[in-house]
Amino acid sequence: MSRAPDTWILTADCPSKLGTVDVVTRHLFEQSCYVTEHHSFDDRLSGRFFIRVEFRAPEGFDEEAFRAGLGERSASFGMAFELIAPNHRPKVVIMVSKADHCLNDLLYRQRIGQLGMEVVAVISNHPDLEPLAHWHKIPYYHFALDPKDKPGQERKVIKVIEETGAELVILARYMQVLSPELCRRLDGWAINIHHSLLPGFKGAKPYHQAYNKGVKMVGATAHYINNDLDEGPIIAQGVEVVDHSHYPEDLIAKGRDIECLTLARAVGYHIERRVFLNANRTVVL
Amino acid sequence: MSRAPDTWILTADCPSKLGTVDVVTRHLFEQSCYVTEHHSFDDRLSGRFFIRVEFRAPEGFDEEAFRAGLGERSASFGMAFELIAPNHRPKVVIMVSKADHCLNDLLYRQRIGQLGMEVVAVISNHPDLEPLAHWHKIPYYHFALDPKDKPGQERKVIKVIEETGAELVILARYMQVLSPELCRRLDGWAINIHHSLLPGFKGAKPYHQAYNKGVKMVGATAHYINNDLDEGPIIAQGVEVVDHSHYPEDLIAKGRDIECLTLARAVGYHIERRVFLNANRTVVL
Amino acid sequence: MSRAPDTWILTADCPSKLGTVDVVTRHLFEQSCYVTEHHSFDDRLSGRFFIRVEFRAPEGFDEEAFRAGLGERSASFGMAFELIAPNHRPKVVIMVSKADHCLNDLLYRQRIGQLGMEVVAVISNHPDLEPLAHWHKIPYYHFALDPKDKPGQERKVIKVIEETGAELVILARYMQVLSPELCRRLDGWAINIHHSLLPGFKGAKPYHQAYNKGVKMVGATAHYINNDLDEGPIIAQGVEVVDHSHYPEDLIAKGRDIECLTLARAVGYHIERRVFLNANRTVVL
Amino acid sequence: MSRAPDTWILTADCPSKLGTVDVVTRHLFEQSCYVTEHHSFDDRLSGRFFIRVEFRAPEGFDEEAFRAGLGERSASFGMAFELIAPNHRPKVVIMVSKADHCLNDLLYRQRIGQLGMEVVAVISNHPDLEPLAHWHKIPYYHFALDPKDKPGQERKVIKVIEETGAELVILARYMQVLSPELCRRLDGWAINIHHSLLPGFKGAKPYHQAYNKGVKMVGATAHYINNDLDEGPIIAQGVEVVDHSHYPEDLIAKGRDIECLTLARAVGYHIERRVFLNANRTVVL
Repeated sequence: MSRAPDTWILTADCPSKLGTVDVVTRHLFEQSCYVTEHHSFDDRLSGRFFIRVEFRAPEGFDEEAFRAGLGERSASFGMAFELIAPNHRPKVVIMVSKADHCLNDLLYRQRIGQLGMEVVAVISNHPDLEPLAHWHKIPYYHFALDPKDKPGQERKVIKVIEETGAELVILARYMQVLSPELCRRLDGWAINIHHSLLPGFKGAKPYHQAYNKGVKMVGATAHYINNDLDEGPIIAQGVEVVDHSHYPEDLIAKGRDIECLTLARAVGYHIERRVFLNANRTVVL
Repeated sequence: MSRAPDTWILTADCPSKLGTVDVVTRHLFEQSCYVTEHHSFDDRLSGRFFIRVEFRAPEGFDEEAFRAGLGERSASFGMAFELIAPNHRPKVVIMVSKADHCLNDLLYRQRIGQLGMEVVAVISNHPDLEPLAHWHKIPYYHFALDPKDKPGQERKVIKVIEETGAELVILARYMQVLSPELCRRLDGWAINIHHSLLPGFKGAKPYHQAYNKGVKMVGATAHYINNDLDEGPIIAQGVEVVDHSHYPEDLIAKGRDIECLTLARAVGYHIERRVFLNANRTVVL
Repeated sequence: MSRAPDTWILTADCPSKLGTVDVVTRHLFEQSCYVTEHHSFDDRLSGRFFIRVEFRAPEGFDEEAFRAGLGERSASFGMAFELIAPNHRPKVVIMVSKADHCLNDLLYRQRIGQLGMEVVAVISNHPDLEPLAHWHKIPYYHFALDPKDKPGQERKVIKVIEETGAELVILARYMQVLSPELCRRLDGWAINIHHSLLPGFKGAKPYHQAYNKGVKMVGATAHYINNDLDEGPIIAQGVEVVDHSHYPEDLIAKGRDIECLTLARAVGYHIERRVFLNANRTVVL
Repeated sequence: MSRAPDTWILTADCPSKLGTVDVVTRHLFEQSCYVTEHHSFDDRLSGRFFIRVEFRAPEGFDEEAFRAGLGERSASFGMAFELIAPNHRPKVVIMVSKADHCLNDLLYRQRIGQLGMEVVAVISNHPDLEPLAHWHKIPYYHFALDPKDKPGQERKVIKVIEETGAELVILARYMQVLSPELCRRLDGWAINIHHSLLPGFKGAKPYHQAYNKGVKMVGATAHYINNDLDEGPIIAQGVEVVDHSHYPEDLIAKGRDIECLTLARAVGYHIERRVFLNANRTVVL
């Protein structure tokens, strides 16, 4: 499950075609790479191929040569691939509002090494969570929302994301609707946690919606941001049993754990390069 | 969990008011009834009180006197109550179409005594499941649907329900939309299983909807029938994890188990008188 | 589920006998107490009765008079009861070693009010977790273990527990075997988290044991301390699915979440007075 | 998840070595086989490699040539492989005693095609389940147990297994301890369901053991038979939450569902050739 500290990750996807597996595995073999885990999936409905390999490289492994060689070999397949070094910890920006449970959980998992990422900034529209970020020695940016100048606030957000070189943005209960422009920029590399089992209870106050509907289960959904609010490709979902005695505030309390676990799982999948976009769905290998 | 074979069930509900618990427990005590399980819940949002008690009656217990006494005592509370004898097995009519997994499961549970009910008829718009019903020695009524005379078919259904004295109707994957009139008749005493985690994926082909949305969990919902299609009060829900490799037919297969378990659970709750209607929600004690 | 901030809790247990419910509910009614939730259970195998009631007291409620009255009424039943005021937050001492996940989780839940307790001290045989405790403004006691004088270390532990007036001790991955004497002192009011689904994998390194056995699920067990190592009455258990690709270190990582959730659940039950001892088993109402 | 009806399955395992993946994927490619799903795992602790591939064969596919070619190629790896044709439904013998829930479930899943197997015989030490087998048109062998001649009964069992050409034996709650000799014969190709979460509660009456221990979860374990009672390699486990109100008979009732689901899952994995033995553990791809 967890990647050994000395393994590389290779991922690729392309249209379905005879030979897709072979083009990858042969290259790995000829470069004397030792495959420790290999998973590929050919989606017969969308006609796309997805592959993820973990491998140990031989001494003197030449990353550039490996890339060049695979690029050449796979050119006729239209294959997009990524190669991740063993020691790579992606830079991450986390966006929050006032609720701190997801932030607390993510920073804890980073601190003990369970999530192999480097949180380079926490951005919020409120000042409340600064002490938590600072205890973890992470810069905190408070960009208050001026209802008359939302674009201005978003420009500040984008500036931090760009200047920190973030490779992943996590919306850890950031309670603002992003502008279409920001959504476009973050498309496919920003993960949001929504506190319902989507597509049920989209939009505001999902736990109150759930209470009114009298459901016997509440859940959370981690998904990529795209143009469509609460409609981006789903990465992970979590669920818990509830009953009539759970008032809305109890659902909110119970939901915190599900949100934390579901978001952490999705972030872990993303960081370990397990997630592929397949139109509006994801493949998680 | 399971009721001992010698226990009575008393349930009641009424508007919230000081003394609701006492009026029930004092009567039980004065009648020398031995309470084995007692659960009550006072809903502070709807202002309603719900109670369910299991008890052993003393020798020479006079059911009618018990009812009369409690009726008198509780009159000022506007309390509706039900008293169920130890040996009561409600008469049940099951409606099906072609899918047999829920019917097979329900009849099995009846046969081994796990559901204390007496299935008095199976009604279908198709002939396919007759052998299954007959193996369990249960009358099977095939009422084909004439698109030009749907009311005619429903009249036959109603006739069987009435003549068998059914106390509960189970729609075990009956793939027809009931008329508003039939819904009204069955309001609150007919249980339907819908193959999604409502309110997500209402209507037709929920597993295909789920596939297209790329969800990572599929579920089933058992609910009472009311006027509003797939909107009746929810009794029980079940869920299972799925992934990208589950094509729609795999979701259907996986869903069968969830549907069986969720429906059986809801039917069990109903039979053991655990379910109370609370506007469009249920209280399950 | 969650207690409203203005409700009292009354719990009681005694040998089974006709009238146990009535003696409690009548007293509540006569004292004009408004019952919001009532749950009682009469265990037919052990012959014991357990009851838990949440109620709102009337204006001018006289706690002492309530206790005295109930004591008198219930004397002939041999009933032991407890009455907990709405604003009561029990004093808690947490014991840890080096692993911080459970401590981090418990302190977080205290901080946001999800666990209504007051952590008055953290005690450890290692200095590592002092910064975490201090960030939450909680005194930290580092009592190193001298293998030649274990009783001496335990005396220091007991002193803190006594001087802080702790009502509950939580062993949040305290990796030391307690002496029989300390176990006796803590019997029934100290909760331990063991990182396996007891009775499987008692003793040391349960995740390694689980790996070697090739199980497909790992779990955690929160239980009361008693004389018998890893054998105290179980309060709560949690479980997660694993597979062949989980090496022992992966089980450890996955187990952290289960341990946190299971321990927090058990502590919540204890604080809300839901847990009753029934010989070596628990009743959780 | 489910195999498309036109796909072959290729599985192999061998000691870990550079080139294990390549030897398989290259052969598939050179034979113009179209890989739809590929999963391989290299166990760094045991030093063994496991691979499972689903593929569509080209027109005119020559099975024997494929085997011969792969045998030659993989000889230096010490690779054992299996090739399963698209239409292969293994012959299965099911052994039962009096409890019928697992048998009912397995025969149902066979009938609707959810388990791609052909049950060729049901063997029992009791006559009770004959009607169920016969309704599914499956021969039923009642071999009563003569305490003075257990080997004689087992010889009859073995004769049926041999004469029917069974490829898999399922012990679906067969409540007899097999002799060491029969265990040896069935080693690795007979699946048993034990009604506890092994290694907890081995041996007789596991639900009563679980009740006495006061556990909050009960489970079931499907495992291969080997010499050691209830100690064979685990294939699948299932679990459900229980509480103090579940008396032993309630655990038995609740356990039925878990046993059915867990056994069916394990049988499905076996039939789809997802299970590999790795010393006393299994790898499930």
